Amino acid sequence: MNIKLTVEYDGTNYSGWQLQPADDTIQARLETALERIFAKKIRVRAAGRTDAGVHARGQVVAFELTRLFDCADLRRALNALLPLDITVVDAAPADDNFDPRRDARVRVYEYRVLNQSLRSAFQSRYAWLVRDSLDFEAMKTAARGFIGEHDFSAFRTVGSQERSTVRRIFVSEWRRERGLLIYRIEATAFLRHMVRTMVSTMVEVGRGHLVPRDIPQLLQRRDRAALPATAPACGLFLIEVRY
Amino acid sequence: MNIKLTVEYDGTNYSGWQLQPADDTIQARLETALERIFAKKIRVRAAGRTDAGVHARGQVVAFELTRLFDCADLRRALNALLPLDITVVDAAPADDNFDPRRDARVRVYEYRVLNQSLRSAFQSRYAWLVRDSLDFEAMKTAARGFIGEHDFSAFRTVGSQERSTVRRIFVSEWRRERGLLIYRIEATAFLRHMVRTMVSTMVEVGRGHLVPRDIPQLLQRRDRAALPATAPACGLFLIEVRY
Repeated sequence: MNIKLTVEYDGTNYSGWQLQPADDTIQARLETALERIFAKKIRVRAAGRTDAGVHARGQVVAFELTRLFDCADLRRALNALLPLDITVVDAAPADDNFDPRRDARVRVYEYRVLNQSLRSAFQSRYAWLVRDSLDFEAMKTAARGFIGEHDFSAFRTVGSQERSTVRRIFVSEWRRERGLLIYRIEATAFLRHMVRTMVSTMVEVGRGHLVPRDIPQLLQRRDRAALPATAPACGLFLIEVRY
Repeated sequence: MNIKLTVEYDGTNYSGWQLQPADDTIQARLETALERIFAKKIRVRAAGRTDAGVHARGQVVAFELTRLFDCADLRRALNALLPLDITVVDAAPADDNFDPRRDARVRVYEYRVLNQSLRSAFQSRYAWLVRDSLDFEAMKTAARGFIGEHDFSAFRTVGSQERSTVRRIFVSEWRRERGLLIYRIEATAFLRHMVRTMVSTMVEVGRGHLVPRDIPQLLQRRDRAALPATAPACGLFLIEVRY
């Protein structure tokens, strides 16, 4: 049977989702827990390969079991074996050919900015501290400039080799919530570092170093060097994957 | 000059406030930072000696400087040297004889309970997970039973030797906030483990193992053995100290 897990994690202490020879990753922790339950190696696949330090509220993970197993029992067994900063929120049977990566229709990410002069002992793991005063209305306008279909080659990490760099953005908007500036973006798929580079670009708009109408031009120029450094990983959350 | 600091910390990674020979404590981190700035040992005093794992939003700390120093510069210098989970929120001059412990008029603590069957990767450091369904109205009634002046000897940790065990409670109330049950208590001073034992007792009321009218009797019996185990440290926050 095919199993679909919804997984929440605080990414602070991990080298990202994907298995790595020497580093502690979310995938490694999940596969170790599954191996302890089923006494064999089980390979899992995820909807999004989140980078080191990135968090998830609704990462979707799938794997195949060669025998039947109660999903509620599986969730409890996994949570009993996983560290407290990784939680299996849901376990459910999935279609035989379900692929969490390929089948995703919409991925939802949020990015949290703490915009104040003083850092916070409780937010430093979960938000990017930006001390400069920001023009939030300009950032909201800039965010709207990303909606629609664009070639995002300027916004991916240098050296990545995706076949197509065209992505369609369904939602791109900022809101204020509990003292944080929160950016939400929804698309079928993203390029590596794309959301974090979009965020750092919009923060440059907020600082007044760019204006909202620069966004279409920066997209058209396809020049990574014209954009600011990627925003830190700690502010990024994979919120939800829809199928 | 006497300096008063307001300090925020995530207590997860520390063995509490107070200096200990072999363990990492908030006091040790602050004194190390001060020693680096002033090139000499400076002893600091705090309003509340929070236990291992307990957090603070507004711990108050004081120390004496033998020379003048700009308070804003001091705050910045300390934050540059302190780890990200300890933040000096404010630094200000204080009266010559200011004692953060003795002079405190009101200490405000909050305790956070996450009442759901599933644990949370983001709340496990900051709330006590209680899986049983709770009668929240009964817990609110129980909380009111603590208001006023009582002998709290049953609610302190075994073996502690405070001179007086009578404390006056000004505020004792539960509220719901963002999926959490939050208890707030205000008093001039507390006994060690007192708030956490009050919380575990009220959770027993929520579970139906005790009723609200048991509270006055438990106070009168002065018998620690009649009370449940202390609630975990992670849920407790020193919110504010008033002078």
